[in-house]
Amino acid sequence: MSSRGAEKRVALVKGDGVGPEVIDGALSVLEAAGADLELVPVELGYGRWKRTGAAMADEDLELIKTCHCVLFGAITTPPDPEYRSVLLALRKGLDLYANIRPFSAPGLDFVIVRENTEGMYSGVEKLDEEEATTLRVITSRGSLRIAERACAIASKRGRLTIVHKSNVLKSDTLFLRICRETARRWDLPFDDMLVDAAGYNLVMNPKRFDVIVTTNLFGDILSDVAAGVVGGLGLCPSANLGDRYALFEPIHGSAPDIAGRGIANPIGAIRSAAMMLEWFGEAEKARMIEEAVGWAVASGIATPDLGGCSSTEEVTEAVAKRISV
Amino acid sequence: MSSRGAEKRVALVKGDGVGPEVIDGALSVLEAAGADLELVPVELGYGRWKRTGAAMADEDLELIKTCHCVLFGAITTPPDPEYRSVLLALRKGLDLYANIRPFSAPGLDFVIVRENTEGMYSGVEKLDEEEATTLRVITSRGSLRIAERACAIASKRGRLTIVHKSNVLKSDTLFLRICRETARRWDLPFDDMLVDAAGYNLVMNPKRFDVIVTTNLFGDILSDVAAGVVGGLGLCPSANLGDRYALFEPIHGSAPDIAGRGIANPIGAIRSAAMMLEWFGEAEKARMIEEAVGWAVASGIATPDLGGCSSTEEVTEAVAKRISV
Ligand SMILES: CC(C)[C@H](C(=O)O)[C@@H](O)C(=O)O
Ligand SMILES: CC(C)[C@H](C(=O)O)[C@@H](O)C(=O)O
Repeated sequence: MSSRGAEKRVALVKGDGVGPEVIDGALSVLEAAGADLELVPVELGYGRWKRTGAAMADEDLELIKTCHCVLFGAITTPPDPEYRSVLLALRKGLDLYANIRPFSAPGLDFVIVRENTEGMYSGVEKLDEEEATTLRVITSRGSLRIAERACAIASKRGRLTIVHKSNVLKSDTLFLRICRETARRWDLPFDDMLVDAAGYNLVMNPKRFDVIVTTNLFGDILSDVAAGVVGGLGLCPSANLGDRYALFEPIHGSAPDIAGRGIANPIGAIRSAAMMLEWFGEAEKARMIEEAVGWAVASGIATPDLGGCSSTEEVTEAVAKRISV
Repeated sequence: MSSRGAEKRVALVKGDGVGPEVIDGALSVLEAAGADLELVPVELGYGRWKRTGAAMADEDLELIKTCHCVLFGAITTPPDPEYRSVLLALRKGLDLYANIRPFSAPGLDFVIVRENTEGMYSGVEKLDEEEATTLRVITSRGSLRIAERACAIASKRGRLTIVHKSNVLKSDTLFLRICRETARRWDLPFDDMLVDAAGYNLVMNPKRFDVIVTTNLFGDILSDVAAGVVGGLGLCPSANLGDRYALFEPIHGSAPDIAGRGIANPIGAIRSAAMMLEWFGEAEKARMIEEAVGWAVASGIATPDLGGCSSTEEVTEAVAKRISV
């Protein structure tokens, strides 16, 4: 993770639904941790689309590119077939090719490293009345750079598992070959697993995993399965990393059904903020936040999604106070 | 499910690994249930490939087509990049477009209806040094026929959930539209869910599902997740149905690591045999087998994969005896 010197300019995309609530939680905790950030609010998403007809404009991307990274809440998908996901546009526009999703729970600790720019998300599609196609594109360049990221992470932790479906998809024989070569070059212990078997083992034996590297849509599905296994999406953070920019976001969506009721779980967003601090080179502050979150969860200070009865604010305050002590 | 009159001609593909062991278990139970079948052994798979260089030949498919259906164990994939899966060749060759996978456990009872011929399994692929592609093909005809099957099943049970990724894949907007139209025509209650959310809900809240209909590879992944949720692959049967032929197989693979040790779980194969009897119109015999299996599982007569210490034979005998009483 790269350090950017003293100045840390963060584009703040609160988004829709519970997005603003959980990001406000993350901001309180960042403040308690003494993070010194320049925040640049950028309004994107459904609300903006309703007002202006565009969920994001070219100028927004330009503004975001004047920042070091994005702290992102959640965005509601407008009910419009022509709509292109803002999150996907940001991943593509900032070339955020590595989606890092750490999962932890008592006795569990693993990371899914998801390729974030190609595969089934190529956008190469045809839609007719009788037939519709999507081209799954795997490139050696795209596979190599995600394999390198995954190996860098695994080299600090232990072991890599390459997840693919090469018994059916020829495109995955390329991905598998490059990941294997990269793991050998890093001199890492590794194995590989079919994506269906990985879904099974995430449920039956999640302890067997350390670092998983996989293609875009498999990473999308498996990380939601993993979120269930560790107790809920509300707990899970993520980092979308490129060589230049980064975007940090909770894995959960905008959850319009509970928005505005003050009960959204801020932990995913708070942990995403901790990942952001680590990326900025503030490892000690990040660790403090992680410790405080772990303490709050273990103490049962939890929102209703985890079976608790605390509000977003109560969880946020508990975490913030624990840090200040 | 269609009845074929008195004569029931079944191609018996025991296959490799634990395949022969679990199929022998299924045959004992079929006998105990008084099933009157003409069995036509067909050797396919890895063993055959080692002996003759071909895992399956055209004549085999012709022989199989003289039967009403296939009872299939499991096949080991030869370590050969040119190898084409026998199971996929059978699904294609017999046009078995509907893969029906029922899941049950105490408090749980749902079915995944997986499209079995198109999607990511199109075989339209290109493999270069720098780039590899697979074309995901969704047709209106393919979507309609699987939607019809799923609605027929849901109409006897209750509710349909259409699982897709139409927020990213245009090819799934076609699938989703046709499934919705079909569910409306059947006048069924239905909803739809993104595939990542479905993976999450299978772990967090599997009770919410009744009948799931989805595309080929999503069905592959989600059914392994579901197998974990109900306690293990060893318990899970499946039916691959076309308009003319059918193939019945446990969901698990050939498990070479435990083959020949007499500890493979025969329940998946036994339940697949029960699905075969139901397809032949022998609903009462199928029910008897299901009841006996449920009793054995509830009594803790189980192989090691379920934490028990019974052998394949002991489980088989317990089920067979329970039927004979
Ligand atoms: C919102 C959607 C486009 C996105 C994805 O499919 O990547 C989401 O599911 C995720 O996991 O970040
Ligand atoms: C063996 C493999 C080709 C097959 C598939 O991918 O369909 C298997 O995983 C299954 O679920 O039946």
